[in-house]
This record gives sequence, structure tokens and C-alpha cells, in this order.
Amino acid sequence: MQASAPSGILAGMTRYVTDDIIYALATAWAQSALAVIRISGEGCLKALSPCFSRPKALVEAQNATTVHGYIRTEAGENIDEVVASVWTDGHGYTLEESVELSCHGSLSVIKEILGLLGRLGMRSAEGGEFTFRAFLHGRLDLTQAEAVQELVSSQSKTARALALGRLEGSLKNQIADFKQRLLTITASVEVQLDYAEDELDEFVFPREQLETLRKDIAVLADTYQVGRLYREGARIVLAGSTNAGKSSLFNLLLKQERSIVSPVKGTTRDYIEADLSIEGIPIRLYDTAGLREGSDAIESEGIRRTERLMGQADLVIYLVDSTDVSHIPSEDERTIVVYNKSDLVRPPKGRLAISAQTGEGVTTLLSAITERLTGGSHASGDDLVVIESERQSRLLTDAGNALERASALVTLDIPLDIIAVELSEALQNLGELTGEVTPSDILETIFSGFCVGK
Amino acid sequence: MQASAPSGILAGMTRYVTDDIIYALATAWAQSALAVIRISGEGCLKALSPCFSRPKALVEAQNATTVHGYIRTEAGENIDEVVASVWTDGHGYTLEESVELSCHGSLSVIKEILGLLGRLGMRSAEGGEFTFRAFLHGRLDLTQAEAVQELVSSQSKTARALALGRLEGSLKNQIADFKQRLLTITASVEVQLDYAEDELDEFVFPREQLETLRKDIAVLADTYQVGRLYREGARIVLAGSTNAGKSSLFNLLLKQERSIVSPVKGTTRDYIEADLSIEGIPIRLYDTAGLREGSDAIESEGIRRTERLMGQADLVIYLVDSTDVSHIPSEDERTIVVYNKSDLVRPPKGRLAISAQTGEGVTTLLSAITERLTGGSHASGDDLVVIESERQSRLLTDAGNALERASALVTLDIPLDIIAVELSEALQNLGELTGEVTPSDILETIFSGFCVGK
Repeated sequence: MQASAPSGILAGMTRYVTDDIIYALATAWAQSALAVIRISGEGCLKALSPCFSRPKALVEAQNATTVHGYIRTEAGENIDEVVASVWTDGHGYTLEESVELSCHGSLSVIKEILGLLGRLGMRSAEGGEFTFRAFLHGRLDLTQAEAVQELVSSQSKTARALALGRLEGSLKNQIADFKQRLLTITASVEVQLDYAEDELDEFVFPREQLETLRKDIAVLADTYQVGRLYREGARIVLAGSTNAGKSSLFNLLLKQERSIVSPVKGTTRDYIEADLSIEGIPIRLYDTAGLREGSDAIESEGIRRTERLMGQADLVIYLVDSTDVSHIPSEDERTIVVYNKSDLVRPPKGRLAISAQTGEGVTTLLSAITERLTGGSHASGDDLVVIESERQSRLLTDAGNALERASALVTLDIPLDIIAVELSEALQNLGELTGEVTPSDILETIFSGFCVGK
Repeated sequence: MQASAPSGILAGMTRYVTDDIIYALATAWAQSALAVIRISGEGCLKALSPCFSRPKALVEAQNATTVHGYIRTEAGENIDEVVASVWTDGHGYTLEESVELSCHGSLSVIKEILGLLGRLGMRSAEGGEFTFRAFLHGRLDLTQAEAVQELVSSQSKTARALALGRLEGSLKNQIADFKQRLLTITASVEVQLDYAEDELDEFVFPREQLETLRKDIAVLADTYQVGRLYREGARIVLAGSTNAGKSSLFNLLLKQERSIVSPVKGTTRDYIEADLSIEGIPIRLYDTAGLREGSDAIESEGIRRTERLMGQADLVIYLVDSTDVSHIPSEDERTIVVYNKSDLVRPPKGRLAISAQTGEGVTTLLSAITERLTGGSHASGDDLVVIESERQSRLLTDAGNALERASALVTLDIPLDIIAVELSEALQNLGELTGEVTPSDILETIFSGFCVGK
């Protein structure tokens, strides 16, 4: 296989060798009906064939076909009945010659087959090594490769959809568009630099295109917060004075009786936490001790903990008892003030009001929470491109900064060759994002975070 | 698919319906690189195709080929990129039209695909239902079907090899041989019954063949103990007086320093347990408090526990201190007496002696343990047929008993038609063993013990 990634990409890569045959258990290490062992590398079919009951059928198998047979020890003893899925060179996940053995999901069978493959001279794969080879052979760019692990570890439907979108190339295409636009701008500058000034008409720097590009890059960079939100979720704390109905709202949101509810003020002392999902965002919700003066020692400690939780929260829902509005907190970026008991007292106009008793207003509250957490970039649209990795965020920000400097230099009428340096740096950042010009140690860091068998 | 199992086999089967499409996750429910979802039943490719990105490629796929594509929701949103392995009617595990989806091993992906298949009108499979269909369509007989689950749950190499042997038909062929021999005997009897006595020469009942067959069946029935041994393993207790070197032997067998060893008598109080494998047999080994009089309260409790453990053990290794042979226990079926410290004092001639210090004699001890546990039927030979299930053991014993009764009746010169009834009962037992004449409630019990996806 000819690598289509840039030459020299492997200089200094100590973790991944690419000219041997690798293998790994791709399914979970647990007893189950089936397990799948992945093997990839030039000549792997021939290497496996002496220990396969139908060596000729295996070696001569067409691409994308399955071969039924037995895996045997060197001594000819059958280890297991398997189905081998075959991909010839240039196909399959890694674009290398490869085979996947679907065997019985017995730990003993798995151990024996893995042991055999090692004795046949194959190498146990490092985490992410199959995907690394897929990247190296040009099947995926780096944003897609990163999406593979994000997809495997996705916890919610939205996180899964966003990762699949990136795997399908949504981010890759977005970056390709940025690069194309940047190249157009750069080309016009290069033309100026290549010719003497008197040979050309007066040059007008395409500043508007540069500015639009810079803004588009900044918007994409900002989606990092949203991407992280869908992957890692958010901590929401229910706060408010005693007896405001926090535990009732908590139970309502969880759709179960989790917190003890009573009309006695200060019923909740220890905070209680539970997981739920709000419009695809994984949420850890905390029900807390109510805030009030003059409580006993245990309750005071509860209140201290509530305050600590509020400090760490991504969002605080401050519940006000509409029947007792002695203290109204101020709303800020991290706080939503909600009037409870709307069934008893009409709350002030224009304020968010609910009844934790009847459920009135709760849908509106959920929308307000989503809106606040995502900053409006709610990932309901299928086409939304969202970045997720810190690496991607940093490179986009760096590219944006370089363009901002270029823009400033244009204003100052600085010579074009200085500006070209900034444009080139932005281009370098975008190239690193997709893996065209990524240093090998960074590649190593990215892929080593993968699970084995991917 | 025409069922080749006896007609009427499904009368009364409530658990398994066989004319619909079933699906199940066949790999473990855990995050991993890959997961495999199995689907089987007539028309399953067509049923799946509206939610596959390449419906035509899927429906028209040749047998034993793989099709790359995306699984989509009814609304057309991609759920995951998958490889579909296709088997057309009459092939694959169940001999039905079937497909295996190899998807990313994300819990979110798995959940969404399983949910989709349910909405497409497919049914979530019961445990063992794929294997049940394979049995029903004649791919496996009942002894082979049972071997599937034994293979999946095999814990040691030997248990794995024995189960695979049964899956390959070793037990099926053995039973077929028994049946053939029994049919030959029965046929000679039937001929006598069909004709008037004066038409035939004087009949000599083939009693020797009957006796040989009865013995062969008894030998196979006896392998149940061995089969269970390799599957479930054995409990071995190291016992003996204090300071006999039990902990040293324990550590030696485990090849690690697990028990605290000291020259002080009574060092071990709590018993310690650990797992190891002796010649393919899973062993749980117990190091215990030494047996002696006049010990303190804690140690006395330790000794009481030792005695309880000895009562429950499959085998007790009673270690004697060769330098202090004040008490020599008697050897019995469940006890092996071993003289330790052979490096210090020559033990009595002809007795099993070891040095837990130098390792001398330990190999001989291991052989003695294996010999004692298996009764000499050590499963080292590849061709050994061993039964494993209580059901198989009972049916073989019943068949043997019927033949024994037949043999006795022959001696008493009882009319042949009475003897024929016993022969017929033995044949019925053998038929039930392979599933030809197994009542549906028994089938249900057998398959429902399987894991889902098998």
C-alpha cells in the first residue's frame, strides 16, 4: 500500500511500526456469543493460512467475502470454528490486506487464538493502531480518525450523531472549505510578490474575504464548548431557599421519587445527585439543602456543601417560592431564576415560572436550560458541525489569530511578504488539523488514546 | 427452510417461535472497538434494507459476502457505519437467511440499532434461539447444540477442546455408533417376531454384542464425572499439622508468594484460597490453618474452618512433616498423604514425597492429583469423548439399564417381544440424546440456558 499521507510522517514515531502484521481483540474481553479478532497487514492471509483448516480458500478469497473454517494450532489441533471476513489489499478499514475472525466468545478460545497469532509472528496492536493505518493510507483524515474514538465512547444519541457526522467528513469538508478560501487569498498575494510592481495593476488586498473567513473560523472554534457539552455533559445544581420545592422538581425531572419530599423546611440535608439527559445533553443533577439562616449544625454543613456545589456547577437553577418571595437572587450567566408554585400564586410577569406540583412550565424550563448551556447552538440540526477535541479548538484559534494579525498588518500598510507569513501560518494550522502536516509525536498522542482493536 | 428435525417438535413450545425474524447483540454489552448484531429469519435482508444506505446491494448480496454501508433511522438519519455479513437461505449459522452487522462498539450505537430493528418488526431473540434454529434446521444435533454453550463458557483449554470436539460431532458420532449397533441387535429380534418360528432356523440371541454395547455405554456415561471436572473444576484443600509446610507448597503451586510463610507454628489462621489450573483442570486451592491441640481461640476457630473445608473438598492433600512424623493420617479415596521436607529427611519408601523448599517431587504430586481427580481418564488424548451435561448422563444410564434388563430377560428365556420392549426403550433414550425424539419442554429447558445472541 502506498501511503497517501505526507512522506516523513513516521520519522520519530516509536510506537507504531507500519510494515508488519498486527492483531487485536476488537470486541470486549468478556464471555459472549461471539468475539471478533482483527488482523491487518500485507501477507496476513498467507501468514494465517497454515493454521486455518481451508488455507487455499482463505488465501484465494475474494475481497469482502467470508470463509468458514477452523483455526488450528501449529500441531493441527482445532481451537475453534470461525468465520473469517477477508479484505484484500486496498480495501477494508485499514486499506491493507486484512481479516476479521469471528469466533465463539469464550475467554479460553480468545486467549488461545491471540496466543497463536503471536506465535505466527504477528504483533499485538497498540491502541488506535488500526485507525492509524487507515489514516496513514488516506482512508480518513485526522478529524475523521479522531471521530472514530469519539463515536465508540459516545454516551448519548446526540454525541453519537455529532461524532458520526465528523467521521463522515463534515468537519473535514468544513476545513477543506476554509483552506480553499485561504489559498485563494494567499494566491493573490503570492502573485503580487512574484512580479515587479510595475507589471501589475494596483493591488487591493481582499480584506473582506479575510475577515469573513476569520469570523467563520472563530464560529467553528466556539463550537468546542458545545461539543464538549454533549460529550462530557453538564452539572446542574438546584438551589433556593428551604421549602421552595427543589426536591419536587428534582423528582419531576428524574421521573421518579428519588428525594424525600416533605412540607418541613430543611428536609434535604445531604445533597443527592442523579443522571439524566436533557435534549441529548448528559446532565448530572444535584438536589441540595435549602439556604436559610439559623439552622442546626447538620443543616449548616448541608448549606456549606450546597454553596460549594453551586460554585462548581455549569448552571444553577435557583428556585424561588412564589408564596414567599422574601429573597430574590440576581440572575447571571450561570444562574436561572425560576418561580415555583405557579399553581398557587401567579408569579411576576415575564419571569420563568413552573409548578413542580402540576408540571406546568417544565418544558419551557428545559428549553431555557438547553439554550443557556449551548449558547443557542443546539445540535438539533443534522448538519451542525461541532468540534470536540482540545487539539482542534487550539489549532482553529491559532489560525484565527494569525488571520487577525494579517488583517491588522494590512491596515498598517505593512509589506505583503510580512502578511504572507501570517497567512502561511494559518494554512499550516489548518493542515495540522486534518493531519497533512501533523508532527509525529502529536499523532502518537492522538492515536494512543484509542481503545485497542480500533 | 424445511425443518429436518422431527415434525411436531414444536408442539407445546411457547418460548420459541420460528417463522419470524430475530435479532440480538452477539458480543458483550460493553464499550469496545466493534460490536456484532445478529439477525436471522426469512426475509431479513429485505426487512433491513429500507434502513441500509445501499438497499439493493444488501438484498442482492451473494451468500458469504460482506456489504459496507450505513444503518439509518426510518427518517434517514445515519446511525452508524457498518459492515453487513450476509448469508442467504440455507447457509450460515441458523441455515436461515441471516445478516450480521459489525458496528462501532458504542453503547449508544448498539442501543439505537437494536431499537431500530424492533421498530422494523423484528423480535429480540431469547437466549439460545439462534442455536435452536440451527438445531431445528438440522445443522446441529442436540449434543452439538449443547456443546455450543459449553464452548462459550469454557474456562480452561481442556474444557474448550472437549466442547469443540462435541461441537464437531465426536459425541454425536459415538451415539450414532451405539444406535447402529443397537439397531442391528433389534433387527435380528424383529425378524424373529415377524415370522412364525417354523419358518426360521433356531434363533440365538446376540447376547455378547448386547453386553459389549452395554459396557461401552456405561464407560461413556462414566465420563460425566470427568466432563464436569474439566468444566467446574475441583476444590483441593492443603491440610496437615502446623509447620508441615502447607503455605510453602501453596506458594510453590501458585508460583507466587501468596501465603505468609514463617517457622512459627500456626502462622496461617484464616484460610487462603486461590485459583490455578492443573493439567487443564480448574482448581481452587485452599491453604489452611494447621491442625494442632492447645492453640488459642483465634487459631482454634481457624482449625474448625479447616475441618469444614476438608469435609467439602474434592481432594485433600494431607501434608506430613518428615522431620516430625508424630501423626500419620490414613489415606483414602479423597485424601493423598504427602511427605514434605524430603530434602531434610528421607521419607518412608514407596510414599509420595516432596520438598516444598526445593520443588523436588512436585511434578509427581501434580500427576497424582490429576490421576486421583479423573480416575485415570485424563483428557490428554484429543480423541477422548466426554459427556458433560446431566441430561446426557441420565439418558446414557437409562439406556444402559434397559440393556441390562434385556440381558437378564434373555438369561431367563423370556419371550422375545418382552425383550424387544427394553431394546426399544434404550433406542428411545439414545434418540432423545441427539434430539431426534426430545420432548419440546426439554428442548426449551436446554436452549433457555444459553446466552443471548447464540
